[in-house]
Amino acid sequence: MTSTVLQNYILGGWYTASTGLSVIPSALDGAAVAQIGSSGIDFAAAAAYARQTGGPALRALTFHERAKILRGLADAINARKEELYALSAHTGATRTDSWIDIEGGAATLFTYASKGRRELPNDRVLIDGGVEALSKRGSFVGQHLYTSLQGVAVHINAFNFPVWGMLEKLGPTLLAGVPAIVKPATASAYVTEHCVRIMVETGLLPEGALQLIAGSTGDLFDHLTGQDVVSFTGSAATAQKLQNHPVIARESVRFVAERDSLNATVLGPDATPETPEFDLFIKEIVREMTVKAGQKCTAIRRAFVPSALMDAVEAALRARLEKVVVGNPVQDGVTMGALISTSQLRDVRGTIAKLAEDATIVFGDPNIPPPGTDADGAFISPVLLRCDAPWAARNVHEMEAFGPVSTLMPYTDLADAIALCNRGAGSLVMSLFTHDPDVAVAVVEGAASFHGRVLINDRDCARESTGHGSPLPALVHGGPGRAGGGEEMGGIRGVKHYMQRTALQGSPRILSAVTRRWISGAPELENTVHPFRESFTQLALGKTFTSPLRVITLDDIEHFANFTGDTFYAHMDEEAAAANPFFPGRVAHGYLILSFAAGLFVDPAPGPVLANYGLENLRFLKPVSPGDSIKVRLTAKAKNQRNAEYGEVTWDALVTNQDDDTVASYELLTMNAI
Amino acid sequence: MTSTVLQNYILGGWYTASTGLSVIPSALDGAAVAQIGSSGIDFAAAAAYARQTGGPALRALTFHERAKILRGLADAINARKEELYALSAHTGATRTDSWIDIEGGAATLFTYASKGRRELPNDRVLIDGGVEALSKRGSFVGQHLYTSLQGVAVHINAFNFPVWGMLEKLGPTLLAGVPAIVKPATASAYVTEHCVRIMVETGLLPEGALQLIAGSTGDLFDHLTGQDVVSFTGSAATAQKLQNHPVIARESVRFVAERDSLNATVLGPDATPETPEFDLFIKEIVREMTVKAGQKCTAIRRAFVPSALMDAVEAALRARLEKVVVGNPVQDGVTMGALISTSQLRDVRGTIAKLAEDATIVFGDPNIPPPGTDADGAFISPVLLRCDAPWAARNVHEMEAFGPVSTLMPYTDLADAIALCNRGAGSLVMSLFTHDPDVAVAVVEGAASFHGRVLINDRDCARESTGHGSPLPALVHGGPGRAGGGEEMGGIRGVKHYMQRTALQGSPRILSAVTRRWISGAPELENTVHPFRESFTQLALGKTFTSPLRVITLDDIEHFANFTGDTFYAHMDEEAAAANPFFPGRVAHGYLILSFAAGLFVDPAPGPVLANYGLENLRFLKPVSPGDSIKVRLTAKAKNQRNAEYGEVTWDALVTNQDDDTVASYELLTMNAI
Repeated sequence: MTSTVLQNYILGGWYTASTGLSVIPSALDGAAVAQIGSSGIDFAAAAAYARQTGGPALRALTFHERAKILRGLADAINARKEELYALSAHTGATRTDSWIDIEGGAATLFTYASKGRRELPNDRVLIDGGVEALSKRGSFVGQHLYTSLQGVAVHINAFNFPVWGMLEKLGPTLLAGVPAIVKPATASAYVTEHCVRIMVETGLLPEGALQLIAGSTGDLFDHLTGQDVVSFTGSAATAQKLQNHPVIARESVRFVAERDSLNATVLGPDATPETPEFDLFIKEIVREMTVKAGQKCTAIRRAFVPSALMDAVEAALRARLEKVVVGNPVQDGVTMGALISTSQLRDVRGTIAKLAEDATIVFGDPNIPPPGTDADGAFISPVLLRCDAPWAARNVHEMEAFGPVSTLMPYTDLADAIALCNRGAGSLVMSLFTHDPDVAVAVVEGAASFHGRVLINDRDCARESTGHGSPLPALVHGGPGRAGGGEEMGGIRGVKHYMQRTALQGSPRILSAVTRRWISGAPELENTVHPFRESFTQLALGKTFTSPLRVITLDDIEHFANFTGDTFYAHMDEEAAAANPFFPGRVAHGYLILSFAAGLFVDPAPGPVLANYGLENLRFLKPVSPGDSIKVRLTAKAKNQRNAEYGEVTWDALVTNQDDDTVASYELLTMNAI
Repeated sequence: MTSTVLQNYILGGWYTASTGLSVIPSALDGAAVAQIGSSGIDFAAAAAYARQTGGPALRALTFHERAKILRGLADAINARKEELYALSAHTGATRTDSWIDIEGGAATLFTYASKGRRELPNDRVLIDGGVEALSKRGSFVGQHLYTSLQGVAVHINAFNFPVWGMLEKLGPTLLAGVPAIVKPATASAYVTEHCVRIMVETGLLPEGALQLIAGSTGDLFDHLTGQDVVSFTGSAATAQKLQNHPVIARESVRFVAERDSLNATVLGPDATPETPEFDLFIKEIVREMTVKAGQKCTAIRRAFVPSALMDAVEAALRARLEKVVVGNPVQDGVTMGALISTSQLRDVRGTIAKLAEDATIVFGDPNIPPPGTDADGAFISPVLLRCDAPWAARNVHEMEAFGPVSTLMPYTDLADAIALCNRGAGSLVMSLFTHDPDVAVAVVEGAASFHGRVLINDRDCARESTGHGSPLPALVHGGPGRAGGGEEMGGIRGVKHYMQRTALQGSPRILSAVTRRWISGAPELENTVHPFRESFTQLALGKTFTSPLRVITLDDIEHFANFTGDTFYAHMDEEAAAANPFFPGRVAHGYLILSFAAGLFVDPAPGPVLANYGLENLRFLKPVSPGDSIKVRLTAKAKNQRNAEYGEVTWDALVTNQDDDTVASYELLTMNAI
């Protein structure tokens, strides 16, 4: 590979800086991989271009349309993944490390594409929660709604996952309808740049949806507004510097940080050496130390074990660490690669020296390059420390050596273990190895508020567990306190970080129009035909069908009981039923009411309604006694197109009796032909 | 009233500072109402006391128990409200203004008490979202969970609502299980101090749950941690100063700000002078200018009207403003009171002068005290400005005169109106007066992301509308950008601001124990008796009932169709049914499956299960053809005790066929005797 100059993708085109370039060295031998720079970019114009061109283009699409773009981007990355693997090798990553980054990144986009299709409507706005009754007569109601922010998302990423680190933010951002400006860490920016190139070349991204700054962000922060989001991953020092930029507080720019974290793991008191959990614990620590050479914000830095097991755990860890082969990842048999750079190597060695003020190194020598490694590369042995007095120590709880480094410490009892985990003052993830539910309950109650993710591993889930160090797109990633207080991903939760929640108030009629959901109290539209005769496209929200009354007799109840086998005493025995606190005497079955209601609203002949595929929020609100009558009112409440042939229709169903009291209410779900 | 020294309530007792006191003048005549100071307080100890005493005490209670405390506090405030009204008069407030503050504050606590009982479980943790499938075989799953932060909430409040401003934060905080330290604004702290006294004297608050700093917060911020929350209401300048305190970024302290906001209102293009919306618009602007003498963070500062209606609107506003009587609120006929202080009066006059650089004063003279008012009081006339070139103006969009001051401006078309609203760069609330749903849709799509709340007022809801300026406990209060980027209240949303969301991962068995909800894949407990025979208390989660198989015949289907009247073709006509894309031919009714399932699981004799009161998440997943058989498996999934006699039980219901394929799944809700 010759040393090329990385390009910026800005204002819809590729731009190469000609001055102020810096050189990116290979992790393997220190040779130049690429040059990088962003001088000459008009950052204010880039932000304005995103807001004025990318934002409107993305907001014009529905969630489902945006999801389709994500799927296309992921497909393209997978199709060209070998190009990325080749570049990634220079970062010191093994094939497995790169797989996490590259295919894990694509998989994250796939998950967002899938969740966007399944969990979001085929629409541009997102309803939050139910209708709030704000008035007695119901003429004034409230509804929360998420709309896309009209700004730009600035993603400032870390060096360790140049592909995944970009995509785990880009997925939710684009799905939210917000354009992004990506600024990768310099040390591995050549991988990110190529991935952006692959995505741009798909032609799927609306103009202005994505820009790349390969170099410093210049004066970009000076131009941020309250509609923008900064999402930062990296060191606490840089995070604080950015967060304290005066524009952040002045404009209330959303600032999401994911930074240093002294992640802990705990060996449960029940997980003695003969249990499967003990072995799982040993394997997980070594895995977390060696994957990506320990350069993971989620890696285990502090391992807590019952005092009595310190020696056993140390011995087991040492035995397993002995088998780790550090070297150039292209060589056979190598199981751990290099740090990203010799500069990073110096940092890690410096921090290990600080940790060693509290602890003893019991495996590995950080200052001796592993045998057979290139002296100009950034190779280091895994280093295990042991600290027998964790409450007297400080550095082990506050300083992160961002490499294959972990410290083993004892705890006296479970309360002590919880307090030690929380001594990290906030982390991205902690794990617990236990098969005892009581231990799990105690740890979650005592520690969860200090940790963004808590993994409990045991013999039942180990085979399928994704492990301590793996953030998953369906789960939130981020943690309180030292971890930065941010939250990313978590499925649709992550999408909402790029949208604004607004409380709407008004009449049911107006809010129905705005939220595209019929709200009780809004006009019920009269029909010349049964609304079941209208296609998905024709059907207007608010279209209503009201049935005639039908009497429910004691015969009906007994007949239904004998037919279905549901001879519950409340239907069959007057005296026993009257003794029940909720019934005046014998009453009709809830399922009889539902079934008769269906008989009252169904339109028998073939038509656009293809199936009743479900029911939501059914409540039986007033008993129906023999001789009472019921009627049902169905109103088209919401529509969600699934594909070119079908769409889901939600119907508000209200069953009332002869006195117009509500007997039952629910939402009926039908699948309708377009 | 003699000038007393306000007390701090700190470390569980009342403390009076003896040095560094400042005097609080009355808004009505400048006479000293009280002295205030907090010198001598050990702020680190106060924070530690909250975390170590108040936090554990609150976390030991369930949401329902905390809700009961809120109700008791609200009752006490209502019972002693006249004491608060008497004090509140010195702030310049009319009886109506004080009613908003005092009874509005108590009502907010009542709402939180009620929502806590209805919308939160009788438990200490809160489930967020569904179970996430993280593995193919289902042995490894995820679940998000909220737990109480283990820190302290520091509430820094504004002067305008000394009671409501405290209670709207205290309700969600205490309900979340987090102790609070309240720091009221000096100018009206004597009302807050008395309200705290009323609450403390109930004896309902756990020790350490509430502290009051009547004076400066000293070095409190130096002692904050990532488990703490700062919730600030006040000026942008103070908010920025606090947010940039180095501890906030270093420890990732949650920082919620609600600050200056140039709230807008829009007269829709359809709301011509002959429409009811025109009159509503005029009334609302005058109301927002005069209530609390315009000292509301939600008051209307910018009113946008179609260009052609500028003169008509100005004339109507002037006519109505002429009727406002400014004066001492105890006097009959007075409709608007004083500003909080002469210092505030100077600020307001200064800002009006700045606004007048962009605009013309068309009503009121800010520099002439209204007739008959005390020259030592803080009285001012309502001031209406008119700015005919809003895009050339700057101050009107960026500077808030925190008094009875509003500026009238023209717009050319709806897009212009939206852009002008958003020119405020983020607000707490905007309102729109329209009866046209298309206007409402356009404004919400274009403007919602810039505003925390959007009120759409029209003839249908005006009578019950709570108005532009009223935050409601059920709706979020706060807004993006200039408004501070914070969010308060919004029902349970506001409770979550004081809790940490954590992603849990593990086996279904372990996560069931931790979340106290049976998760599919966790062990199904065998029974010697039908689980319907176990009381609420006895019933263990995971207890399972499995029914025998029952054949569904074509006769059953026809019988059910004729009995219920549900003769939908998919059940009755083989050829038509087979033409439906979802059915292989004639199939059983979904309601027949539900009814037969009930027949299979019901235990007829009287017992602890009193009623099946509802159903959730019903999905019909596979058609049942004539000759197929079904069986049902019911598993106790969750329990929620309602009172001493009853509790709700949620049952996971799974209907399968003879091949063990899932036919239907749902959650059955029963009410069980304790």
